[in-house]
Amino acid sequence: MICTIAYLGPPGTYTELAALTFRNWLGQQQEAPPSLIPYATNARVIQAVAQGEAIWGVVPVENSIEGSVPMTLDTLWQVGALQIHKGLVLPISHAFLGYSQNWSQITTVCAHPQALAQCQHWLASHVPQADLTPTNSNTEVLHSLAQNPHVAAIASLRAADLYRLPILAHPINDYPDNCTRFWVVHQDASPAGRYTSLGFSVYANIPGALVKCLQAFADEQINMSRIESRPSKRSLGDYLFFVDLEASLQDITVQRAIARIETMTEQLRILGSYDIL
Amino acid sequence: MICTIAYLGPPGTYTELAALTFRNWLGQQQEAPPSLIPYATNARVIQAVAQGEAIWGVVPVENSIEGSVPMTLDTLWQVGALQIHKGLVLPISHAFLGYSQNWSQITTVCAHPQALAQCQHWLASHVPQADLTPTNSNTEVLHSLAQNPHVAAIASLRAADLYRLPILAHPINDYPDNCTRFWVVHQDASPAGRYTSLGFSVYANIPGALVKCLQAFADEQINMSRIESRPSKRSLGDYLFFVDLEASLQDITVQRAIARIETMTEQLRILGSYDIL
Repeated sequence: MICTIAYLGPPGTYTELAALTFRNWLGQQQEAPPSLIPYATNARVIQAVAQGEAIWGVVPVENSIEGSVPMTLDTLWQVGALQIHKGLVLPISHAFLGYSQNWSQITTVCAHPQALAQCQHWLASHVPQADLTPTNSNTEVLHSLAQNPHVAAIASLRAADLYRLPILAHPINDYPDNCTRFWVVHQDASPAGRYTSLGFSVYANIPGALVKCLQAFADEQINMSRIESRPSKRSLGDYLFFVDLEASLQDITVQRAIARIETMTEQLRILGSYDIL
Repeated sequence: MICTIAYLGPPGTYTELAALTFRNWLGQQQEAPPSLIPYATNARVIQAVAQGEAIWGVVPVENSIEGSVPMTLDTLWQVGALQIHKGLVLPISHAFLGYSQNWSQITTVCAHPQALAQCQHWLASHVPQADLTPTNSNTEVLHSLAQNPHVAAIASLRAADLYRLPILAHPINDYPDNCTRFWVVHQDASPAGRYTSLGFSVYANIPGALVKCLQAFADEQINMSRIESRPSKRSLGDYLFFVDLEASLQDITVQRAIARIETMTEQLRILGSYDIL
C-alpha cells in the first residue's frame, strides 16, 4: 500500500494543516514522507482508510466554540474497524479574504457553516449588508474571488498564501480562544496512549442507565473529559454515547471500568487509546 | 404587542409546518389567529422573542438522524430569559424537486446541510454525478429551479406545493423513521408540563462531577431522555450540559433533584417545563 494521509480538502483547510503537522511528526520516524490526499467530506476520509485507499486519515472531532463534528463520530461508529492513532489540537484563526478594500460593497461572504458561525458577530458588525453563503469547505470559492470583488471569504492564513489572496482582516473569530481537536485514524491499534475514547449504547428508557455507566468511571477516579450523545438513527430518543477518558487503556482502572460497563451496554466499542501530539 | 409567531423561514421549511401546527393548537384557545413571521436563522427567531418582536418562537431542537441543532441550545442559553412553552415532534419526509426527468443531466443538488446529510445514500445511488451544494434553508433555491433544469433541490411536500415544483421522487430519506423535535419558546413560564429541560455547567476537571449531577435524577427515578454537551466557548474541554427529563417541574422528585444539583453546579438554568402537542 502506498503511504498516504487522507484529509478533508482541498488544500488550505485547517484539516490539511493538521495533516501536515502529523506528517511532520511521522517524518521523524519514517524515511519517505507520505503524500497527502484531499477528500470532499470527513465521511470519505474515514471510508478511505477503512477501505485501504489511505494508511492514515485526519478528521476534525470537536471545535471549542461550535462543538462536535457529528459526521466524524457517526462515520467512525458505522465503519467500526478503525482505531484512533493520535490526537492533535490546533488553534483556529480565521482571516477575511477578498479584493474589495471598500467593505460596504461586499455583497456576499462565502465560508464553511462552522467558520460563518465562529465569526457571526464580527460579520454582523463589519459587513452587515452581506449575504452569508455556506460552502462545503472554506477554500471552495477561493479560486474565483479575483473575478468577483463583491464576494469575500473566510479561510486560514495558509489558504491566503496558497491562493495568493489579499488579507482584509485577521483574526476575525468572535472568541479568541478557538481550537479544533483532530483525530488521526488508522486500521491498526497503536500502543495504548494517555487518552481513551469509547462509544456505547444503553438499553433505552431505563432511569439511570447512562448514569450507571458513567459511575463506573467515577468510581475508578477516571476523569471523563467529554461526553457526546448522537442519535442511534433508530428512533427519536435513542442514542449512542461517546466518551473521552483522561486515562490509558493500559490502566487497570480503565480495564475494570470497561469490564463493568460491558455488562450494562447494548453495544460497546473502544475507538482508541492514543497520545496527543 | 401584535400576536405573532417567529420561525425559521422562508415559508415551506419544516419549521414553518411546526409553527402552523402550533398556531392551529393555539387557535382553539384564542380568537384572532397569530401571524407567522419568517427569520433567517434559529438564533434570530430566539432573539426576536427575547426582544419582544414576536410572542412565540418555533425552533428545531433535535433530529432523530442528524442529532441536535447546536444554534438553538447555544442561543437559548445566551439570551437566558426565555422559557420552553411547548414541544412538538414532526415526521420529516424529504422530496426531490426539479425539472429534469433525465436524472443523469442533474449537475447540482441544493439543500440545507442537514437535508443533504439525511439523504446522502439516496443521492449517492441516484444522482452520483451531482455536486451537493449546501444552502441556508431547503427553500432558498426553489424560486430559481425553473430557470435551471440541471439543478435539483430537496425540500418538503409543502414547499413543492408553495413553489409549484415537480416532485421527481418522494420520500428520499435514507432512514424512514426521521423525526424532528421542535420547541416553542416564550417570555413567560407556562404552567409546568410533563417534561422538564435544564442546562448547567459543572466545575471542570473533577472526576465524576457530571455523574454526581446525573445521579441526583437517577436516585429519584427520573428518566433522563436526552443529554447534550455543548462547548462553554471558554476553552476546549469546558462544557455546558443540557438534559431533558421525563417529569414535571411540579413533581417533588424533580424539585429535590434540582435542589441537590444546585449545590454542585457552577450555573444552572431551568429552560422550561412543558407538554408535547
